[in-house]
Amino acid sequence: MVPPSLAEPFAYAADMGGKLVRPALFHATAISISGCCKHSPTPLALELIHTYSLIHDDLPAMDDDDLRRGKPTLHRAFDEATAILVGDGLQARAFELIADADDLSAEQKVRMIKVLAEASGFAGMVGGQYVDIQSTGKALTLEELKAMHAMKTGALIRASVALGGIAGGATEEQLAALDRYADNIGLAFQVVDDILDVEGDTETLGKTQGKDEAANKATYVKLMGLEGAKAEAARLLDEALAALEGFGESADMLRELARYIVERDR
Amino acid sequence: MVPPSLAEPFAYAADMGGKLVRPALFHATAISISGCCKHSPTPLALELIHTYSLIHDDLPAMDDDDLRRGKPTLHRAFDEATAILVGDGLQARAFELIADADDLSAEQKVRMIKVLAEASGFAGMVGGQYVDIQSTGKALTLEELKAMHAMKTGALIRASVALGGIAGGATEEQLAALDRYADNIGLAFQVVDDILDVEGDTETLGKTQGKDEAANKATYVKLMGLEGAKAEAARLLDEALAALEGFGESADMLRELARYIVERDR
Repeated sequence: MVPPSLAEPFAYAADMGGKLVRPALFHATAISISGCCKHSPTPLALELIHTYSLIHDDLPAMDDDDLRRGKPTLHRAFDEATAILVGDGLQARAFELIADADDLSAEQKVRMIKVLAEASGFAGMVGGQYVDIQSTGKALTLEELKAMHAMKTGALIRASVALGGIAGGATEEQLAALDRYADNIGLAFQVVDDILDVEGDTETLGKTQGKDEAANKATYVKLMGLEGAKAEAARLLDEALAALEGFGESADMLRELARYIVERDR
Repeated sequence: MVPPSLAEPFAYAADMGGKLVRPALFHATAISISGCCKHSPTPLALELIHTYSLIHDDLPAMDDDDLRRGKPTLHRAFDEATAILVGDGLQARAFELIADADDLSAEQKVRMIKVLAEASGFAGMVGGQYVDIQSTGKALTLEELKAMHAMKTGALIRASVALGGIAGGATEEQLAALDRYADNIGLAFQVVDDILDVEGDTETLGKTQGKDEAANKATYVKLMGLEGAKAEAARLLDEALAALEGFGESADMLRELARYIVERDR
């Protein structure tokens, strides 16, 4: 339950209109294992974690962004205190959602919460954002850039796939293959983001184009060149698809998502 | 795992030196039910949630505090981005700790996570802090003040007792009695905080004395008078002890904690 006074900023956050890549990965992974499609609120937990991280990353003390997905960022539409608290509340709500799910066993829920908490915490998303902020203006090597993104965005993408696998009842062997898939599309996701920051336009992206360049941030394009980054994205897509070789047609949605992540224009 | 670059602020947060009231309540409650004392990392989850909330509440956009427990607040010792991220990471770590505990069943963990997430989210701690910030400078009624504190500090205190009860294997009836105990000491905790803000000195408190008065905040002392607030704290202590009437000597630690909360000088 959200108190009445928080209803407006909460609705604003819930309506930020993301691409829902993480819930889609969850669903597609669950389907790749169990063949079909159980309705579940659980994947929303992944989007709540992602949304909270965007709200906090946009704060003046962090990336200081005014525009997100074509709308004023939460702290611009309301204020900083509201943005901090809505982010905090969304994180709690994500874990509550999983604990509350009625379509999962207690063992499944505990494993999912453990994976999600690790992926979103110090060893994952939060740690990656910290490294990112600390390294702005510094010359990262390609290895350091990859390690940072593996934490900042990769960890939650891998968690999305892992949670879908756990929900679908995947074997440990299947989970390992799915993790190779997720690791590659996680990296590809960031490489493509860097390409779009150079090639996209602000209106399509819904965020300020050229911002990485302006902030003097290390990017794949800067370290590999535009053509090198594009070749890397294609290579990562191939690796991701190869990881799914043991899967049948039930994994076609996962394959589609991998292609979408690499070929998207926003 | 905390990345090396975050090790220093993480250690600073972990060493903030709180009174550990919430883990103590967890332990005392578990002992009141099971008669003894299992070593468990779970109660630390409660302190992590509490610590993260203090770090975020101290931020310039919120209460803008320089001093906490006698030391510079985290954003003063480091910077705002670090304080936001350390708080975010501590929240994730709290849920990870419970999911990772090896002394609890999966069913116990799921129930504890659900209770903790609800208590720390929009319907609890986060929602209460939001109401508190929104109402600074406004004339709250006593009922509004109680409702705000029941969310802001009461919810996590009730969760501390509930988690201890779940860990100890309490019956639903025992949990209900424990919740009446917790509800009363949660309110008492805040009444005493307001009394100490008037009567305590900055050095003993470890935070700036008289800050509520300066910020023109509604307090129990302002609404009930100093003597009225003291009588209310004594009444709440009696109610809390009465809720434990069905418990034997094994609940003596809970009784001691209730007295400590009302009679403390910091």
